[in-house]
Amino acid sequence: MKNLSLLTDLYELTMAECYFHYKKNTLATFDLFVRELPVNRRYLVAAGLEDVLAYIKTLGFSKEDIVYLKKQKFFSKRFLKYLSSFRFHGDIWAMPEGEIFFPNEPVIRVTAPIIEAQIIESFLLNTINLQSMIASKASRVVSAAKKRGVYDFSLRRTQGWEAGIKAARSCYIAGCKGTSNVLAGKLYKIPVAGTMAHSFVMSFKNEIDSFLAYSSIFPSRTILLVDTYNTRKGIQNAVKIGLYLKAKGNRLQGIRLDSGDIISLSGLARRLLDKAGLKYVKIFASGNLDEFKIKKIIQGSGRVDNFGVGTNMGTSIDAPSLDVIYKISEVTNDGGEFLPTMKLSQAKVTYPGRKQVFRIKNKNGNFIQDILGLEKEKIQGGPLLKQVVAKGRVIYKSPPLDKIRDYFKNNLKKFPDGLKEIDSRYSYTVQISPKLKKLRQSLTQQLKKRQLNG
Amino acid sequence: MKNLSLLTDLYELTMAECYFHYKKNTLATFDLFVRELPVNRRYLVAAGLEDVLAYIKTLGFSKEDIVYLKKQKFFSKRFLKYLSSFRFHGDIWAMPEGEIFFPNEPVIRVTAPIIEAQIIESFLLNTINLQSMIASKASRVVSAAKKRGVYDFSLRRTQGWEAGIKAARSCYIAGCKGTSNVLAGKLYKIPVAGTMAHSFVMSFKNEIDSFLAYSSIFPSRTILLVDTYNTRKGIQNAVKIGLYLKAKGNRLQGIRLDSGDIISLSGLARRLLDKAGLKYVKIFASGNLDEFKIKKIIQGSGRVDNFGVGTNMGTSIDAPSLDVIYKISEVTNDGGEFLPTMKLSQAKVTYPGRKQVFRIKNKNGNFIQDILGLEKEKIQGGPLLKQVVAKGRVIYKSPPLDKIRDYFKNNLKKFPDGLKEIDSRYSYTVQISPKLKKLRQSLTQQLKKRQLNG
Repeated sequence: MKNLSLLTDLYELTMAECYFHYKKNTLATFDLFVRELPVNRRYLVAAGLEDVLAYIKTLGFSKEDIVYLKKQKFFSKRFLKYLSSFRFHGDIWAMPEGEIFFPNEPVIRVTAPIIEAQIIESFLLNTINLQSMIASKASRVVSAAKKRGVYDFSLRRTQGWEAGIKAARSCYIAGCKGTSNVLAGKLYKIPVAGTMAHSFVMSFKNEIDSFLAYSSIFPSRTILLVDTYNTRKGIQNAVKIGLYLKAKGNRLQGIRLDSGDIISLSGLARRLLDKAGLKYVKIFASGNLDEFKIKKIIQGSGRVDNFGVGTNMGTSIDAPSLDVIYKISEVTNDGGEFLPTMKLSQAKVTYPGRKQVFRIKNKNGNFIQDILGLEKEKIQGGPLLKQVVAKGRVIYKSPPLDKIRDYFKNNLKKFPDGLKEIDSRYSYTVQISPKLKKLRQSLTQQLKKRQLNG
Repeated sequence: MKNLSLLTDLYELTMAECYFHYKKNTLATFDLFVRELPVNRRYLVAAGLEDVLAYIKTLGFSKEDIVYLKKQKFFSKRFLKYLSSFRFHGDIWAMPEGEIFFPNEPVIRVTAPIIEAQIIESFLLNTINLQSMIASKASRVVSAAKKRGVYDFSLRRTQGWEAGIKAARSCYIAGCKGTSNVLAGKLYKIPVAGTMAHSFVMSFKNEIDSFLAYSSIFPSRTILLVDTYNTRKGIQNAVKIGLYLKAKGNRLQGIRLDSGDIISLSGLARRLLDKAGLKYVKIFASGNLDEFKIKKIIQGSGRVDNFGVGTNMGTSIDAPSLDVIYKISEVTNDGGEFLPTMKLSQAKVTYPGRKQVFRIKNKNGNFIQDILGLEKEKIQGGPLLKQVVAKGRVIYKSPPLDKIRDYFKNNLKKFPDGLKEIDSRYSYTVQISPKLKKLRQSLTQQLKKRQLNG
């Protein structure tokens, strides 16, 4: 990753200049969390930590950056000098990628000099937002597919190429089997998949010629797209190719349906293939799919083995952003002592203090609820936030992607079934510990007083 | 931009291997266009061409890429050798950035060896999709604001950091006045804006201390965020700071409202500021805004001077992807002659042949309709597609961003007012030329016959 230190909102830097003059030694803790579940989501899947840590490692402003900032005429020489040797010195605690989380639970907790904690805000929000959002959506699609394969086909419609790469990775974490995105395949060792487009079929005199050409080049890895002209005819042509390959000792891998009524067409395809002795030929479906359409196809006994899902998954189309925020929860006073704080205005109240998330199991090892408490509280249950950066040094090594994927998969199994139904209204309990509740109450009183005097 | 040549769907490469063996010399034309307007849009704004051209310039596979592809065991040695010296040799015609376009109109038209035309598909779709989508959304937000300023505050919630940078650029093309995104400001010379967050106010003992600290550092560039505790009190504190700065010969730049009823709060703020002789202090509003909310605020006589718009604009939240596609429209036969082609199946019929978009003016110079015709047709009206790449060489230099912005602004003025109302049902006419209609009819017959024989 190139240096993205300037990828920050201007106000992080103007605030930093003020802190530099007034609060250079002030430390603060910030929580990055989601305030509310988006529509259709019952849980969220943490992703993006690997990029956050890479960013922390490379954080620092280049000479060119400083020259640019100087030209903006916002900043003092002394502050720009400070920025030119800026790096991160704080602590970061985070949920590992693939962790499942809920509203109000910090996914990342930063304790650092307040200047530093603010400057990294925009990148952290941006990164966790995108990757957790896509992983959460993809998890629904994978659940809906019930053991059938799901492939990420979203590259062409993701919001930019970086989003395309990160979508492939996030979908894989959530259980997708692969991606069409070759660069993501290379970068993250994700299996790549894909065969032919309609334009390929159309560039030949007729469909069967295009099928013959393709299968002669990839005799054991051919998936034929059968809906360019007439789908029934396309399936019949695919059967011919399947038999032709079989006669030569090869196996047609599959056919792909990209339009029309997938339930009836996949049924037709299965019958025609089976009748011809091509039971091993897999049926792929694609074309504007999402978890709801997949559920319908399966409920309607559609004979689809693998789904290629694009835009709807790769943009999290029903919820294209998470309500992810980064809020201060404690700050040191002049004596260097951490004092809890929180936002009071409107309905947007937050939880003060340095917090931890405890996940409670029942005797079978299944999760029954979370407790959001203070870090030092003694609560039975796995603390989900682990330290990943200590005094500016990254002390956590991201596991290989396959391990993250397995972690998520095994983790999800331990949650109540209701949570995983794609149209469920099930709500998992996140309890606030009595101590945290009490702290919030007393702080509310205190802040209201301060306001009146303010 | 680093080399993104592998940023392609795997099927582009598997098809390429087939073309390499069967159709190495086949040329084809592809149109990149949007099939249907998304919800709430009456027109679209072209953006992304600069990146497309940068991509074409750097296209080529590195040794590392080839090693990766080899490992996938899809590709022949000969083909990989070909890929290792791959570059683009075709022609590209495109609408300039800032152009206004409609469904079925090619935004980009590629004529090239079919292998090359396919390999660039994923990147072109991805790039035009993101940037045109955001520019189109931002244009609505800017229209709704009716001469008031709109600033892009979307970085923290865009779908990744690249999307954040491109969103800032696309919003600026569409008429936004600036962005909070410092890196985008640097890369594209977009004015940057922003002041303070709630956490800044909260890090001080009380609100007024935070205001004093900030304004002492930026006495002529202070915008005070007034809703951290109690908004009325916050406005009163801002008035105090305004008067304090005034006494010292400085001007408070503005206040920002980020929550609550913006209409009444901005009215209150205006009254209190004016009463104190601070008429010059501007009022900024932010917080989950979009074009509909802005319209309401203005209709309700909200006294807002500038709007900061984030997530809803930066993710095009109501339409987070365009129905952008890339379809083959002609292909050479064995004799090297271009023959028109089109997709026939289902409702997804496309227009065949090498096309041009003609925009028809009335005698006042205003646009009254477009005609989608064949390139060689003689039609009165500006052809919108210009050649930008000739035989692989980029022959078009993107204008400076401010020029693109001006171009868009002046262009939009020439369209009927109905088009620009944010809740309009107005539909601009895109007529199909009689010749193109005829070609499509005869080709439909021909392809149906081919199908029956296929």
